[in-house]
Amino acid sequence: MYKVDLNSDLGESFGNYRIGMDEEIIPIISSANVACGYHASDPVVMDRTLELAKKAGIQVGAHPGFPDLMGFGRRNMAVSNAEARAYVLYQLGALDAFCRAKGMKMQHVKPHGALYNMAAKDYGLAEAICSAVKDYDPDLIVMALYGGKLVEAARDMGLRVACEFFADRAYEEDGSLVNRRKSGAMIEDEEEAIARTVRMIKEGKVRTITGKDIEVVGNSICVHGDGAHALAFSARIRETLIKEGIAICPLKDIV
Amino acid sequence: MYKVDLNSDLGESFGNYRIGMDEEIIPIISSANVACGYHASDPVVMDRTLELAKKAGIQVGAHPGFPDLMGFGRRNMAVSNAEARAYVLYQLGALDAFCRAKGMKMQHVKPHGALYNMAAKDYGLAEAICSAVKDYDPDLIVMALYGGKLVEAARDMGLRVACEFFADRAYEEDGSLVNRRKSGAMIEDEEEAIARTVRMIKEGKVRTITGKDIEVVGNSICVHGDGAHALAFSARIRETLIKEGIAICPLKDIV
Amino acid sequence: MYKVDLNSDLGESFGNYRIGMDEEIIPIISSANVACGYHASDPVVMDRTLELAKKAGIQVGAHPGFPDLMGFGRRNMAVSNAEARAYVLYQLGALDAFCRAKGMKMQHVKPHGALYNMAAKDYGLAEAICSAVKDYDPDLIVMALYGGKLVEAARDMGLRVACEFFADRAYEEDGSLVNRRKSGAMIEDEEEAIARTVRMIKEGKVRTITGKDIEVVGNSICVHGDGAHALAFSARIRETLIKEGIAICPLKDIV
Amino acid sequence: MYKVDLNSDLGESFGNYRIGMDEEIIPIISSANVACGYHASDPVVMDRTLELAKKAGIQVGAHPGFPDLMGFGRRNMAVSNAEARAYVLYQLGALDAFCRAKGMKMQHVKPHGALYNMAAKDYGLAEAICSAVKDYDPDLIVMALYGGKLVEAARDMGLRVACEFFADRAYEEDGSLVNRRKSGAMIEDEEEAIARTVRMIKEGKVRTITGKDIEVVGNSICVHGDGAHALAFSARIRETLIKEGIAICPLKDIV
Repeated sequence: MYKVDLNSDLGESFGNYRIGMDEEIIPIISSANVACGYHASDPVVMDRTLELAKKAGIQVGAHPGFPDLMGFGRRNMAVSNAEARAYVLYQLGALDAFCRAKGMKMQHVKPHGALYNMAAKDYGLAEAICSAVKDYDPDLIVMALYGGKLVEAARDMGLRVACEFFADRAYEEDGSLVNRRKSGAMIEDEEEAIARTVRMIKEGKVRTITGKDIEVVGNSICVHGDGAHALAFSARIRETLIKEGIAICPLKDIV
Repeated sequence: MYKVDLNSDLGESFGNYRIGMDEEIIPIISSANVACGYHASDPVVMDRTLELAKKAGIQVGAHPGFPDLMGFGRRNMAVSNAEARAYVLYQLGALDAFCRAKGMKMQHVKPHGALYNMAAKDYGLAEAICSAVKDYDPDLIVMALYGGKLVEAARDMGLRVACEFFADRAYEEDGSLVNRRKSGAMIEDEEEAIARTVRMIKEGKVRTITGKDIEVVGNSICVHGDGAHALAFSARIRETLIKEGIAICPLKDIV
Repeated sequence: MYKVDLNSDLGESFGNYRIGMDEEIIPIISSANVACGYHASDPVVMDRTLELAKKAGIQVGAHPGFPDLMGFGRRNMAVSNAEARAYVLYQLGALDAFCRAKGMKMQHVKPHGALYNMAAKDYGLAEAICSAVKDYDPDLIVMALYGGKLVEAARDMGLRVACEFFADRAYEEDGSLVNRRKSGAMIEDEEEAIARTVRMIKEGKVRTITGKDIEVVGNSICVHGDGAHALAFSARIRETLIKEGIAICPLKDIV
Repeated sequence: MYKVDLNSDLGESFGNYRIGMDEEIIPIISSANVACGYHASDPVVMDRTLELAKKAGIQVGAHPGFPDLMGFGRRNMAVSNAEARAYVLYQLGALDAFCRAKGMKMQHVKPHGALYNMAAKDYGLAEAICSAVKDYDPDLIVMALYGGKLVEAARDMGLRVACEFFADRAYEEDGSLVNRRKSGAMIEDEEEAIARTVRMIKEGKVRTITGKDIEVVGNSICVHGDGAHALAFSARIRETLIKEGIAICPLKDIV
C-alpha cells in the first residue's frame, strides 16, 4: 500500500505576534516541524504548540533555523560549521524539553528556511547539522530535499532520512527545485500539482520543467497553513491522496 | 565526615565577548552553574564550557535566567509564572543537549541573578521553576538560597534541594541575606568570611548582622572566578576547608 | 472651538510578523505613536510606517519601550534611570532618522506599555525619560497619563505635555485609571464611553467609578486599530466628536 | 604638509561585557567609529563612549553593522538592499541621538565587519548604504576601502569619501586587500608596516604582494585597541608619522 507523510511548519508565532493557522492545519498533517526559538517562536509558544500537537496525536520534529528573528531565518548567513552544529544542538534540546515534559517523543529534524536551502548545497554544513542530530539522538529522522547534500550527509552518517516533495514546485533535471525567480518555478494549477504528487508517490517520477521524466523520492509532502487558500489546497491534497488509496501516516511509519 | 560543594557560575561569555576566568576557577570547584543562552552564553560557548567541565570531571547544572542579555539577567522582570516555567524548561533542554552529546549527566539547576532573587521571595514563581525542573527530570537537584521560597517549593514538590551559603555575605536573623545597600552587608575580612564558612559547615550556625547565632544549612558555597582577587579568595576557601578536614564534593554526593 | 487629538499606536509589526490594521486606523487619527525597534518594529517596518503616515498627512511621535520584544514591552523591568534615559534617547534618534530622511518632523514622544505605566508612578523614571526628550529636542511634546508623574516631570523640566484620555477606561477619584483586574475597569458600553469622552472635552470632567465627578484634562484620545471591532469603535468616536462640533487635530495644534 | 587621520573602532562593549581598550586608544586616534547597537554596543555604552570621545576632543562616526550580535557583525548576511538601507538609517539616527544630546556633530560613517566587506564588492549594497547616509545627512563622510564599490557609490551619489589604508595588510595589484587566508596577507614586520604607511602617505604608492608598485589613496589609517600589543603598535605608528612630519588630523580636515 502507498504511504506518505504530510508535513507543515508549526508554532512560528512569537510573543504577541501570531502567524500561521496552526489549529486548522493540524488535522490535515501527520508530522509538524516546530520552530525552536531562533528564527521564530518562544518558549511559551513552543509549550502551546506541542500541547496542540499532542492532543491531535500528530508527530513532531524540530525545525531549527538561523539566529535571525528579524529575517525569519530566510536570509543566508555565513555561519561556520561549528556554529551551525551548536545552533542545531541547542534548538533540538530546547524543543525536546517540551516534548519530554509532555511525554512526547521527537520524531524528526527539518532545518528551516535558509539553513535548509544552504544545507542542500553544502556538504560540510549538512554534515555539521547531522552531527548535532546524531550526537543528540541517532533515532531522529532527518527531513531534507531529495537529491540534496543533507540527504547525502545523513545517509553517510547512518541516520534515517525522509525526502521531502513539493507539490507546487517545478523540478530541474538534476532533481533540484527550479529557482523561484525563474518563470514556471511554481505549479500554479492545483489539479496539476496534485496529479504530480500522486504520480510521484505511485510511480516515483516527476516531469521536469524541461519536459523530461526523472526519478524522485518523496516520503513527505510539504503543505502550508499560512492562509485560507493554502489551507484549502492542503486539505484538497489530503483528500485526493486518500481517495487515491494512499495512506497518510507519520514519517516514523515510512522510513 | 564533613562535606561541602563549591559552586561557581561558568560559561557566561557571549559571541566575541569573553567574561569570567573559567579555566582558572574550574580546578577549585566541584559544581558549575552553566549559563544557557538567555541572560548570557550562546551555543558555541555552551559547547566549549561543557567540554572544559567534562575534562576537569566536575559536575554541571543549568543556570537559567531572564531573556535579558543587555541586563545580564540581573534586572527584575515581571514575567508570568507560565512564562517563567517555559523559559526554564527551554534553557534546561538547551543545556542538556550539550550534556547528552558529550555523555554527561546534568546534576542541578540554579536560577540566575534576578530570577534567583525573585524566586527566593515569590512562592508562585518558585513553584513555576520547580514545575519545569520536575517535568524535565525529577532527579535534578534545585540549588537555592537557604530559607527562601525556592527551597520550600522544591521540597513541596518532592525535589532534592541544595542550600547555598555565601561566605562573604552577612545574614539577617530570618536567614536571608542582608541587602547589599545596607552597611555591613559584605564580609570584607577574608579570614572572617572563611571562619564563618567553616563554622557554618561544622556547627550549622552563622552569626547574624545583629550579633545573634542562627541555624543555617549550606550544602554548597558560592565562589567566583570573575577576577584575580575573587579567584585567589576562592582558592583560599578551598584550601582552608580541606585543611579543616572538610571534603569538597559535588552536590549529588551530598543531598 | 473644542479641539482634540486622536492617537493610536502604529508600526508594531516585526520582520515577517504583521500586527495591527495600520492602513485602516490612519484615516481616523491625527497623531501616531510609532514603535522604535525595542518592544516592537524593525527598521524596514519603521520606514514603511512613516511612509504611510506621510502620505496620510498625520503627525508622528516616537513610542519607545523596554528592550523586551518577547514580552512586547508590556512587562515591568527594573531598569535604572540611566538605562531608561539611554534607551529612550536611542529610540528617539532611530525613529527620527526615518522622519529626517522623509522630510518629516517628529511631533511627540509617548512611552509604551510597561514604561508608560511605570513612568506614571515613578518620578525618577519619568524624569529620566524627560531628560532624554529634552536633550534630544526640547520642542517635542510628551504624551502621558493625566495626573501621572510623567506629566509632572515634563512640566518641571519645561517640556510641553499632552494629557491622554481613555474613552473605555474607568477612573479612580485621584484621576488614575482603575486597575484592569478590578470589576468595572472597562467601560463596556460604547455609547457611554463616547458620551464620557464628549463630556471630558466639553466640561473637563469625568465621573469616577465611585460616582463622583472629577476634573480631568485630555488633549488626546487613545484609539486602537488592532481588530475590526476596535477599528469600528474608533471610527465611531471620530464621527461623534465631529458631529458634536469638536475638531480633530494633531497635538501640535493643541498644546 | 602631509595629513592623515587615524581611526579605530570604539564602544563595542555590550551590557555586562567589556571589550576593547577604549580609554587607551582614544589619545592615539583622531576619529572613532562608534558601534550603534546592532553588531555590538547598547545605549548605555554609546552614551559613555561619546562622553569619552567628547572629553578627548576626537571626531566620531557611526559604525553600523548587521543585526548579528552573536556573530559580532562579522558573518555575511544576505540582506536585501532595502533592509541594508533601513538598518544603516536606524543606526545613524540612534548614534546621532547621543551626539545631539552632547552637542557633538557626527563626522562620518564606516560600515562594520561583514557589511564593510560586502559593500566593497557589491555596488547595489554600497548604493543602499550611501542612500541612507545621503538621506540622513549629506555632509557625512563615507569611510571605505580604497578601490572598493562603496567608494564608487558614494562618489556617484555626490558624498564625500575617505579612503582607508591598512598598515598591516598586503595589497593585490588591483588595490584590494590580500585575502587573510593567503600566505603573506599580513605584514608581520612592524617596521615594514610603518614604512609602507609613510610611503603611502608621502608617495601615494604601495608595493603589492606581487612586488609591483601601485597607486593607493589612504586618508585614514585603521588602528586597533583590542590588546596591549595592538595598542603599542598603534602608538608607534602615531609617533613615527609625527616624526616624519605628517600631521594627524580628523577626516573632516582632510576630505
